[in-house]
Amino acid sequence: MRKLRLITALLIASSVCLAAPAALAQDGDTAVTTQELQFVFNTLLFLLGGFLVMWMAAGFAMLESGMVRSKNVATICAKNIGLYSIAGLMFWLFGYNLMYGVDAGGWIGSFTWYEHPTHEAETGSYAGTSDWFFQMVFCATAASIVSGTLAERIKLWPFLAFCVVLTGIIYPIQGAWTWGGGWLKEAGFSDFAGSTIVHSVGGWAALVGALILGARIGKYDSKGGIHPMPGSSMPLATLGTFILWLGWFGFNGGSQLALGTINDASDVARIFANTNTAAAAGVVAAMVLTQILYKKVDLTMALNGALAGLVSITAEPLTPTMPMAALIGVIGGVLVVVTVPLLDKLKIDDVVGAIPVHLVCGIWGTLAVPLTNDSTNFGSQIIGILAIGVFVSAVSAVLWFILKGTVGLRVSEEDERGGLDIAELGLEAYPEFGPVTSPSTA
Amino acid sequence: MRKLRLITALLIASSVCLAAPAALAQDGDTAVTTQELQFVFNTLLFLLGGFLVMWMAAGFAMLESGMVRSKNVATICAKNIGLYSIAGLMFWLFGYNLMYGVDAGGWIGSFTWYEHPTHEAETGSYAGTSDWFFQMVFCATAASIVSGTLAERIKLWPFLAFCVVLTGIIYPIQGAWTWGGGWLKEAGFSDFAGSTIVHSVGGWAALVGALILGARIGKYDSKGGIHPMPGSSMPLATLGTFILWLGWFGFNGGSQLALGTINDASDVARIFANTNTAAAAGVVAAMVLTQILYKKVDLTMALNGALAGLVSITAEPLTPTMPMAALIGVIGGVLVVVTVPLLDKLKIDDVVGAIPVHLVCGIWGTLAVPLTNDSTNFGSQIIGILAIGVFVSAVSAVLWFILKGTVGLRVSEEDERGGLDIAELGLEAYPEFGPVTSPSTA
Amino acid sequence: MRKLRLITALLIASSVCLAAPAALAQDGDTAVTTQELQFVFNTLLFLLGGFLVMWMAAGFAMLESGMVRSKNVATICAKNIGLYSIAGLMFWLFGYNLMYGVDAGGWIGSFTWYEHPTHEAETGSYAGTSDWFFQMVFCATAASIVSGTLAERIKLWPFLAFCVVLTGIIYPIQGAWTWGGGWLKEAGFSDFAGSTIVHSVGGWAALVGALILGARIGKYDSKGGIHPMPGSSMPLATLGTFILWLGWFGFNGGSQLALGTINDASDVARIFANTNTAAAAGVVAAMVLTQILYKKVDLTMALNGALAGLVSITAEPLTPTMPMAALIGVIGGVLVVVTVPLLDKLKIDDVVGAIPVHLVCGIWGTLAVPLTNDSTNFGSQIIGILAIGVFVSAVSAVLWFILKGTVGLRVSEEDERGGLDIAELGLEAYPEFGPVTSPSTA
Repeated sequence: MRKLRLITALLIASSVCLAAPAALAQDGDTAVTTQELQFVFNTLLFLLGGFLVMWMAAGFAMLESGMVRSKNVATICAKNIGLYSIAGLMFWLFGYNLMYGVDAGGWIGSFTWYEHPTHEAETGSYAGTSDWFFQMVFCATAASIVSGTLAERIKLWPFLAFCVVLTGIIYPIQGAWTWGGGWLKEAGFSDFAGSTIVHSVGGWAALVGALILGARIGKYDSKGGIHPMPGSSMPLATLGTFILWLGWFGFNGGSQLALGTINDASDVARIFANTNTAAAAGVVAAMVLTQILYKKVDLTMALNGALAGLVSITAEPLTPTMPMAALIGVIGGVLVVVTVPLLDKLKIDDVVGAIPVHLVCGIWGTLAVPLTNDSTNFGSQIIGILAIGVFVSAVSAVLWFILKGTVGLRVSEEDERGGLDIAELGLEAYPEFGPVTSPSTA
Repeated sequence: MRKLRLITALLIASSVCLAAPAALAQDGDTAVTTQELQFVFNTLLFLLGGFLVMWMAAGFAMLESGMVRSKNVATICAKNIGLYSIAGLMFWLFGYNLMYGVDAGGWIGSFTWYEHPTHEAETGSYAGTSDWFFQMVFCATAASIVSGTLAERIKLWPFLAFCVVLTGIIYPIQGAWTWGGGWLKEAGFSDFAGSTIVHSVGGWAALVGALILGARIGKYDSKGGIHPMPGSSMPLATLGTFILWLGWFGFNGGSQLALGTINDASDVARIFANTNTAAAAGVVAAMVLTQILYKKVDLTMALNGALAGLVSITAEPLTPTMPMAALIGVIGGVLVVVTVPLLDKLKIDDVVGAIPVHLVCGIWGTLAVPLTNDSTNFGSQIIGILAIGVFVSAVSAVLWFILKGTVGLRVSEEDERGGLDIAELGLEAYPEFGPVTSPSTA
Repeated sequence: MRKLRLITALLIASSVCLAAPAALAQDGDTAVTTQELQFVFNTLLFLLGGFLVMWMAAGFAMLESGMVRSKNVATICAKNIGLYSIAGLMFWLFGYNLMYGVDAGGWIGSFTWYEHPTHEAETGSYAGTSDWFFQMVFCATAASIVSGTLAERIKLWPFLAFCVVLTGIIYPIQGAWTWGGGWLKEAGFSDFAGSTIVHSVGGWAALVGALILGARIGKYDSKGGIHPMPGSSMPLATLGTFILWLGWFGFNGGSQLALGTINDASDVARIFANTNTAAAAGVVAAMVLTQILYKKVDLTMALNGALAGLVSITAEPLTPTMPMAALIGVIGGVLVVVTVPLLDKLKIDDVVGAIPVHLVCGIWGTLAVPLTNDSTNFGSQIIGILAIGVFVSAVSAVLWFILKGTVGLRVSEEDERGGLDIAELGLEAYPEFGPVTSPSTA
């Protein structure tokens, strides 16, 4: 019986108030202690932040569904729900203890699975499992970034196999170096909510993947021509962006890791405001700049401008003033508008613009930390960016090449032209609308 | 004036700290008591959990919109917003007091409407109305399950009439038996967040409705052929699944019913992790199994695999270890992949797979409780499953037959072929895309 | 290192418990004080409410995307993400201090930008920046209302220019009069969460804009004929409505402005229940009434019925009993069904029905306050409605005329027929589906 359980819970609660002096009891009631209160508030922050970041998985799914052509939409949906699920399992099986089981100053934790602590073991300032949940959704975010870049040509299972290693091994090991308390932390590297540790990790894996996989058929011709392949649904792309923006309050706000004091609550509020301001500034910068450059606002750039602002503020969403948050976001928005055509010139085919958003702005955000946070320095930031970039790129490259050389990474030309949905899933995303073979196929 | 109200509130707050000894007062401040803290945290949990479960109504609307053909999409939207609204009114008018006004060990509460308690009456460990809100959205969830199965052929108003009785009478009465403290609770039946009490209730009502309503025209032919009728939008179905997954953290986590102690907060965290793990395991199981069985991943099975894992863990999301949560989810995912074609063989036409997901996995999850929760036993679980199944099926059957014999349940053959949107609403869901008469119509 | 930071935070937290008598300390722990607890809970309410209201921006984007024709969908997406971003910047640059820097009984605050308070300055009962965030998303909501009415013919940049002034100047000034503690507050005007201060403000700006802009080509013919222009996606419109409904729990619930006492938590719960009940009643009223009037349920009316109920209960979601909340919602739903055709008769072209929903129901909700709240009176309510209506209409009219006379408000006839997406953004929302030139174009 649901309601009676509450009374029992209350009785238990009263009795576990270990630190409350008995003399305070009155009418069977006791005073609450700081430790107890902190524990509940901090755990609540992890759970709130966690479900908001979990929601970002839907945001990536919608953004990518809107940015690919209709013949590949169902496959990108399958990849997104698949990778989120894989992250959830791998971060339990290996990831968490690899990342947080590291010795101070060390390089790697242990290959053991995560187990729920018992009530008796909950002696810290938050529930252990709430931290697992919060860190797990961050791991999933890194994998989500990869799927967009490589869309419309990578096979489903090899992509998911990459995600197994990315979420179970690659992400946790580099995460251990800073957030796990390892050597990069000791080296002074600072990345509050993961511009580098989450976003550029996904970005590096995506970049290396894009280089090894090659561009979509018809995207670039031999004469240097670049052929746009417009996304199938702008409202879904917009929805995805709004979802990501919403989820980012959990991403950055939750990374305060504590809520139960006046200072922590104020800091979380400040993080919310700075996060929103950077995103808003990124949108406005991208809209104004595309109007100036191309005489028209580019909606996909505006959407990516929001994400650019968000990624840029993620490495340090707490210390900036509002004008600095806006400036960090503006530069992020400009970087995306500038980098997207640059990648096309280099014939690096990034379907959704994930490399400009998550890698380029991830680096920018990480470099910007010392501008507002006096306890950091550019040298340490550069060491962190390079160390993580080299590690993730190298291991990803090895992994992509192994997959390419064994099961193969790319669908056949025929399947790519006909669409991955029919080839990989045997269905269509929109069976009643539009052409089965898209006119955009060269 | 919004800001000044805070100061007043603070003054009131200080004065209502009844249990705080005056001797503690210092600078006008007083110590907080356990009862007060519990009250606020528990109420907050109900409100947070409640809005997440409310959001599941949108999830069902999107999942079902994606899984029906375009000619029936607007009608399924109307059904979903209609049923959520009806649940909100009926659970106020009858439902809550029928469900929670029952005597210990009893069968039924009272036919009176719910009234907000006054401040003076708020003496428990949570705000009374927060519990009403939380329980109301659970009731709406049960009704949401029915709409998907019966889509594409049931008339709008008879369906809504069924929902009036389901949410106002059927759901609350069976809910009273366990969560209201009635006879099933006394018999030892345990269903933490409603694998049986919510999900299989919707599933039984849907199954009986599907049997009485019959299959869609052209779904099954006389030679035993089964004709797939692909859903109109895979990204909307995917979005709906992610929404449901997100909402489930409120569904299961909120069912802890308390947050304000170290143990409760830890338990909510554990529930979040187990819920996510079961869903992830359900997705992976469904993807792997459909790849093995059909040589292709089936996206709709992957989505239903997530929901299968979620329903399966719902009866007991707290006591399992992580490996057990994964196992419970895997079995849920397998059950869905196996049961969907079985229903087709029986010519039971379930448009979205709600019977496999909510009924079959609801039973599985309920049976799995004693595997991890020592205070339960299989006998009591079976009694609960059977009692609720028989009651809901019998009353639903009577109600469906009454509706069939009076106003009629099913649209005309012409209207079904032309689509319910034109017939029932006089509009089209996508007036500019695709054929008005879908090519999938036999 | 993320986990170690928690321990530091805890140590700081313990030391800031200024009001906790040292004698209570035991095992290094101290009792929590009321002020500290209030601060965290109230801040949390602002952040929770704030992210839910932020999410309403996505709701408006989806609702409007679904209600416009496909050739204008991308532009409405650009407008929505643009206006939300502009609101975020303008409410920082001018809005907040214009609105909350006003003297008691005054008319206007100061033209200074908002700065984060330092930790030392956080002496109130909530974090200053959490209030900024919460109030900013309300400001954005007012602008969101305008975009729907004026869709399918207004140019992108002039619309965004209007939003700059609306969110930076118009909204904050009228907001200062009541929520800022200005003269309307002194005059006894009461508007709990903004039926007038947010919703009718958007509604007046939209109405004046619609009058100055004129109807879409082909909407009304010279013989008095009204030509429906069906929205392109009913599921997106439904999704948008559900998002708005969800966000409204933050909108109304957060406007309690305090959570940390038994009474405040109870009040927030009561607000949630009344908000849901009014919305549900609005849906049912609109469905029943359209069935009676037109022999068919009108889905767009049902969706607007939900919003009508929500707007209507917003001026006073706390004091009504459940039956009164339902009644307020029913009248809202009826008003929308009655007003939509009335506007068409007046040849006022409101693409999404924002004027009936936000202006008409905003007025109704504000007038209904004295029915349940004894501390208010009809005279003061009418003064508030008129004062704000006259101010917003007049300033908006001047601004619309300035824009019309300088840069121009409306796209060319050719661009309007071909769709704003091609003309304004150079892309299509759904490049692979349906006709580029919609058959609905007269």
